[in-house]
Amino acid sequence: MAKAFRLEEIATRLNATLHGDPELTIHGIATLSDAKAGHISFLDNPLYRKYLDTTQASAVILASDLAQVCPVAALVVPNPYFAYGQVASLFADVPQGQAGIHPSAVIDPSATVDPSASIGPNVIIEKDTVIKAHAVIGPGCVIGERTTIGERSRLWANVTIYYGVEIGSDVTVNSGVVIGADGFGYAKHEGVWHAIPQIGRVIIGNGVAIGANTTIDRGALEDTVIEEGAIIDNQVQIGHNVKIGAHTAIAGCTGIAGSTHIGRDCMIGGGACLAGHIDIADNVALTGMAGVSRSVREPGIYSSGTPLQPNAEWRKTIARYRNLDNIAKRLKRVEKQIPKVEANDDN
Amino acid sequence: MAKAFRLEEIATRLNATLHGDPELTIHGIATLSDAKAGHISFLDNPLYRKYLDTTQASAVILASDLAQVCPVAALVVPNPYFAYGQVASLFADVPQGQAGIHPSAVIDPSATVDPSASIGPNVIIEKDTVIKAHAVIGPGCVIGERTTIGERSRLWANVTIYYGVEIGSDVTVNSGVVIGADGFGYAKHEGVWHAIPQIGRVIIGNGVAIGANTTIDRGALEDTVIEEGAIIDNQVQIGHNVKIGAHTAIAGCTGIAGSTHIGRDCMIGGGACLAGHIDIADNVALTGMAGVSRSVREPGIYSSGTPLQPNAEWRKTIARYRNLDNIAKRLKRVEKQIPKVEANDDN
Amino acid sequence: MAKAFRLEEIATRLNATLHGDPELTIHGIATLSDAKAGHISFLDNPLYRKYLDTTQASAVILASDLAQVCPVAALVVPNPYFAYGQVASLFADVPQGQAGIHPSAVIDPSATVDPSASIGPNVIIEKDTVIKAHAVIGPGCVIGERTTIGERSRLWANVTIYYGVEIGSDVTVNSGVVIGADGFGYAKHEGVWHAIPQIGRVIIGNGVAIGANTTIDRGALEDTVIEEGAIIDNQVQIGHNVKIGAHTAIAGCTGIAGSTHIGRDCMIGGGACLAGHIDIADNVALTGMAGVSRSVREPGIYSSGTPLQPNAEWRKTIARYRNLDNIAKRLKRVEKQIPKVEANDDN
Repeated sequence: MAKAFRLEEIATRLNATLHGDPELTIHGIATLSDAKAGHISFLDNPLYRKYLDTTQASAVILASDLAQVCPVAALVVPNPYFAYGQVASLFADVPQGQAGIHPSAVIDPSATVDPSASIGPNVIIEKDTVIKAHAVIGPGCVIGERTTIGERSRLWANVTIYYGVEIGSDVTVNSGVVIGADGFGYAKHEGVWHAIPQIGRVIIGNGVAIGANTTIDRGALEDTVIEEGAIIDNQVQIGHNVKIGAHTAIAGCTGIAGSTHIGRDCMIGGGACLAGHIDIADNVALTGMAGVSRSVREPGIYSSGTPLQPNAEWRKTIARYRNLDNIAKRLKRVEKQIPKVEANDDN
Repeated sequence: MAKAFRLEEIATRLNATLHGDPELTIHGIATLSDAKAGHISFLDNPLYRKYLDTTQASAVILASDLAQVCPVAALVVPNPYFAYGQVASLFADVPQGQAGIHPSAVIDPSATVDPSASIGPNVIIEKDTVIKAHAVIGPGCVIGERTTIGERSRLWANVTIYYGVEIGSDVTVNSGVVIGADGFGYAKHEGVWHAIPQIGRVIIGNGVAIGANTTIDRGALEDTVIEEGAIIDNQVQIGHNVKIGAHTAIAGCTGIAGSTHIGRDCMIGGGACLAGHIDIADNVALTGMAGVSRSVREPGIYSSGTPLQPNAEWRKTIARYRNLDNIAKRLKRVEKQIPKVEANDDN
Repeated sequence: MAKAFRLEEIATRLNATLHGDPELTIHGIATLSDAKAGHISFLDNPLYRKYLDTTQASAVILASDLAQVCPVAALVVPNPYFAYGQVASLFADVPQGQAGIHPSAVIDPSATVDPSASIGPNVIIEKDTVIKAHAVIGPGCVIGERTTIGERSRLWANVTIYYGVEIGSDVTVNSGVVIGADGFGYAKHEGVWHAIPQIGRVIIGNGVAIGANTTIDRGALEDTVIEEGAIIDNQVQIGHNVKIGAHTAIAGCTGIAGSTHIGRDCMIGGGACLAGHIDIADNVALTGMAGVSRSVREPGIYSSGTPLQPNAEWRKTIARYRNLDNIAKRLKRVEKQIPKVEANDDN
């Protein structure tokens, strides 16, 4: 609170070209439409271009092609969204963990906790587990046996990690996350489901971020692996033996069934469902609610699902949809009755 | 347990017209088909009209048009479902919080806890947080810094609230809920995702109810806002900067992506997915599993999705569906070959 | 670790026919493609038949028709997947609960905890609750009033059980699960939603397994019931008054709305959504992402949803789909203009 920076100071941090008064005082950051005098704002998404002319911000971060039309001071950078994030961090006020172990924490004597790590109230750390330097373990977290939490990784409150999990460095795990529960593996024998022991682990790479209430199951025989730099939103379900490639982004409410492998640099839309035992290539994008039942071998954007319609119209559509096979057959019959059309007349 | 009321006493509480014996003793409440002698029941959904004639209930709450055909005592009210809720509360036996702070709770000295509030075992309350009168904080809850919990609000066990969250009065938050985690905001720079600090808050209005394991992310720059009286079911995901209008109802497993605004008095069906940066007008209803990729500007009921079919039939349907563009083009070609039909012959 | 078994010893436990050297030492289990010397593997899914010829495993569990082609020692059994599970349990190293109550647990004096039960750190057990013999209650669990946890049932860390819940014997409940929260029942009265007290319970049968972060709501008037041997994956939402039949399997991210009844031995695919107040017969299978808005009265496999397409192709498909009613009407007009086709010419 009450933080303030000279505009030139911000320009230097961003390595930005400054147009305007370097002595301006900036004491906050806001959207173009909400900003007041003293605020810095940014323009990245062209949808918001319309707010530039009337913004009350004192300065705006934007790309070079807009510098001339900016009505206030401008900081010109190649990637305005990334630069906005850097400035936002100047004004953020995120609680930091304090080094040391809260007296209410219950830590097995065989566990190793680095003195620079922060262990919050009511944390439980089980045997042979290792918490590395500058890691922050929030209140109420439970970390099972034979687990490692890497340097500078942060578990927010009430995270649950089962046994035998490897979490790299600089990993963020939000509240309510469960990592390492048994995968959904059962054999039916004489009419009854028998749990297959899940003896694989979960391996989380460096720099991974995991959203609130996401679940990542341990492997059956192989490990479940999230590679470095992948980012996973809230309420995502990741089944046993799944591999997620490096720097892949997975939006909220997505479910990935067991043994599916997703490549690097993929973008998985919210609410997508991926069947088990399939492969998704690198650089694949799936739009929201995509249902994926087969492997996707080529990079590109893929979609499924049907558009929203007023309910009365939708009822008509689905009545016809149900009947599509019949419609197609009837069209074929009709075609047989009439002369051939020219090949180039196709729309 | 062993609670009992005279029928007249219940009629008075409901402001109902009583048909039948006012001295009847009512010691329980049940559905029309399950009720036994001594129970009161209710009829609201016309689907259950068929159970009225044979009910074993001693009395039934219903609307005036059914009073004459009710075979047992009747309590006539304008809104039988609401009245049933009032009677159910007579027989409910919900554990109440006891004023005071459990000795195992860990409360920062700078936090303010009203003496009438109930703080359960193992609760953690961080610095500068305020818990107002008659609030009930269940066991294992973690409430971060600079947060306010309003009068009479109840957090069930194991709720996690991050820092800088405002929760109004008479709010219900069920177990496993996470409020205030960082929104899913990342900028890609040189192939690596960088988290954008999320410096907005979450504001929850008076009388809001939030179901188990629901997640509500903090805003990026603006706040995430749930207006008064909205009701949200279990496992709903609400992204950063989302606004939910007053008295809107959101059923389970729905996901709402960032910066989307939903109006007042909407009804969002279960399993719906809403894209980010869109607007939904007041009084919009979305049916279950609706996928919404664009703004909805007019009140009304909207749907998407396809009907359930036997698998063999569905395989045929989707083969044709995949081919729909081709079908439409072929139809157009056929139409060009034949004489025009009359305009009014359209089915 | 460092566990080892003679092959004959494993054969005896599995009641398998052994082909090969009974004295082989087996010290691990792995997939056909990952196995090394000293490992046992298995072959069940025909997709993996191709790895049999080159496996480095010392022995393979398989069905009798493959015994002759197995290049290494074979254990022949009728159900290789089930047998694999039995062998996996030999090599599993799952942390076990220790009998007794951790000193940090907070247990109401009126609760009954069997001396053979294991109560972990920071567990909270409220009044009149019963924990039976050999039950294991993981760290951070909160178990409300008037609840019973049956013999040998295991709650992993950070599970929340509300009041008045009955959990049978040999039940597994994974972390983050919430059982017994209020169902989503509200009556609108004068523009405001009023919560209907939910006075039913949740009853979980013997041998049920419940995945991480799954939620099961308490009944409104009736109980919510999960019958014996049902298996439920992660992040499943089960509404009030739902009944799940015995030995039914429900995959992750599925939502089941209130008052729906599902039969025995059903298989519900991941990401499915079931509307409220419907009935699903015994032995029904729903494929992934199925949307079910009506009752399903006959056993069989059912599906809904549309296939994944490259985005450009999908845009064309949905433009036509939106227009399907119009396409069907135009086809009908065309049909009226041309001579009747023969009845048997339908493809």
